[in-house]
Amino acid sequence: MSPVTDVDLHINTAVVEKLVVGFVRNEVRKVGIERVVAGLSGGIDSALSVTIAVRALGRENVIAVIMPYKMSSPDSLNDAMSVVEDLGITHRVIEITPMIDAYFDAMPEADRMRRGNKMARERMTILYDQSSLERALVLGTSNKTELLLGYGTLYGDMASALNPIGDLYKTQVRQLSRAMGVPRSIVEKQPSADLWIGQADEDELGFTYEEADRLLYLLVDLRYSRDDVVRAGFGAEFVDGIAERVRANQFKRRPPLIAKVSERTIDRDFRYARDWGR
Amino acid sequence: MSPVTDVDLHINTAVVEKLVVGFVRNEVRKVGIERVVAGLSGGIDSALSVTIAVRALGRENVIAVIMPYKMSSPDSLNDAMSVVEDLGITHRVIEITPMIDAYFDAMPEADRMRRGNKMARERMTILYDQSSLERALVLGTSNKTELLLGYGTLYGDMASALNPIGDLYKTQVRQLSRAMGVPRSIVEKQPSADLWIGQADEDELGFTYEEADRLLYLLVDLRYSRDDVVRAGFGAEFVDGIAERVRANQFKRRPPLIAKVSERTIDRDFRYARDWGR
Repeated sequence: MSPVTDVDLHINTAVVEKLVVGFVRNEVRKVGIERVVAGLSGGIDSALSVTIAVRALGRENVIAVIMPYKMSSPDSLNDAMSVVEDLGITHRVIEITPMIDAYFDAMPEADRMRRGNKMARERMTILYDQSSLERALVLGTSNKTELLLGYGTLYGDMASALNPIGDLYKTQVRQLSRAMGVPRSIVEKQPSADLWIGQADEDELGFTYEEADRLLYLLVDLRYSRDDVVRAGFGAEFVDGIAERVRANQFKRRPPLIAKVSERTIDRDFRYARDWGR
Repeated sequence: MSPVTDVDLHINTAVVEKLVVGFVRNEVRKVGIERVVAGLSGGIDSALSVTIAVRALGRENVIAVIMPYKMSSPDSLNDAMSVVEDLGITHRVIEITPMIDAYFDAMPEADRMRRGNKMARERMTILYDQSSLERALVLGTSNKTELLLGYGTLYGDMASALNPIGDLYKTQVRQLSRAMGVPRSIVEKQPSADLWIGQADEDELGFTYEEADRLLYLLVDLRYSRDDVVRAGFGAEFVDGIAERVRANQFKRRPPLIAKVSERTIDRDFRYARDWGR
């Protein structure tokens, strides 16, 4: 077994770019739609997704929605605007403060986790409303690391029609972002969901994306066993913690569970692809 | 082939009750949780789901959330309250008017479809917030007819952790509701999503639930072909319209589509049950 440091998540960015751009073009047009809307947070994931969409559909067919809360970092807004300007796309700023505060005014005791999740879901509801207005699909912006770790809000930022970067680990998102010209300040800044002041993903998670990605790649993509990765040098506690996180968050990657009482139940024996019949 | 009028959707309510009650008990407790929260609209679907949950978990473990908008029918609130009182459960009334109006104030041109979908999604965000506060799971209340027709809001009323009635057609929901003692006024009233004044499901759909259910049962549960059901007496146009609706709304029953670029992609070759490993 090769030592841990040899785990190679390097992607061929030219090939992957072609795949994800083609994916967006085909999946959007297949359903008779021309456009996408996407939330732009100022972070790398949404910047990359939007860049891919522009490559796929043309800049006139991508609408960016920037949805700050009063406590969002001004840097986030600036970074989001730099993507808008770089790509020359239409954008809209919709503050979520009035809706969020209207809800929490009556619940001052709500902790930042509840507030953060409510914000992520409010943003989803706005994106879906804008998608209806614009006859567009909602573009997803969650990467594979987040999706596997369940580090995101169910029916919030994890919700979309199609997601071009959901099969790329965070470190691979960085590689592709560099190759596709996402602004350097965005590629290099510390990852943060920006749900409260000073939030930093890696502090909150307790490990770096680099460590998590290498482990997840071995476990998920290469199907190494727990003992394989421990022998390869990963700490047993870290491995077990990550594996449990992936398992415990499986519900976020599945539709609601339905009680089976008939011959054919949705998502059990009645389960087709999203584009069934097209 | 038997004539259309012979299609029998009759369920053995005692058996089905046992199945759905056992489902809620097992699925909730399996993940180390004791409670559920559910939105109570005043309609039959949520009334039945909540009744099942009380049977499964005890009335102290079911929290009803009533979320009226200023234009919701007062009858809806009264009907919801009659369920709360009948079952003796904890309830909470959270008006969605401030949050909805805060959003649409800046968009007076938004039509009632956009408003209705935003309301359904706002209710979802509240249920999820309450579920976090209460350490409870969100109980789904969509029936099989709605889910198959896509007659519901994606990431709104269609979102939940577990759904006890998602495999029961609307007419079967009525049978089970009668058997389980849902208030008669609720069982007998005209179905309505109550998203705007005077909305009636069957007017909006253009057919009755009874017709749709019989056709769906043949097509989905019994796997009749299109020609089979037309020979059985269903109008070809009605059949094709319903079949197209079921197909076109498949996306609402699936997680977001992810561009495949790796050996193992979420929801393609990395796809486990919700309770994987438990």
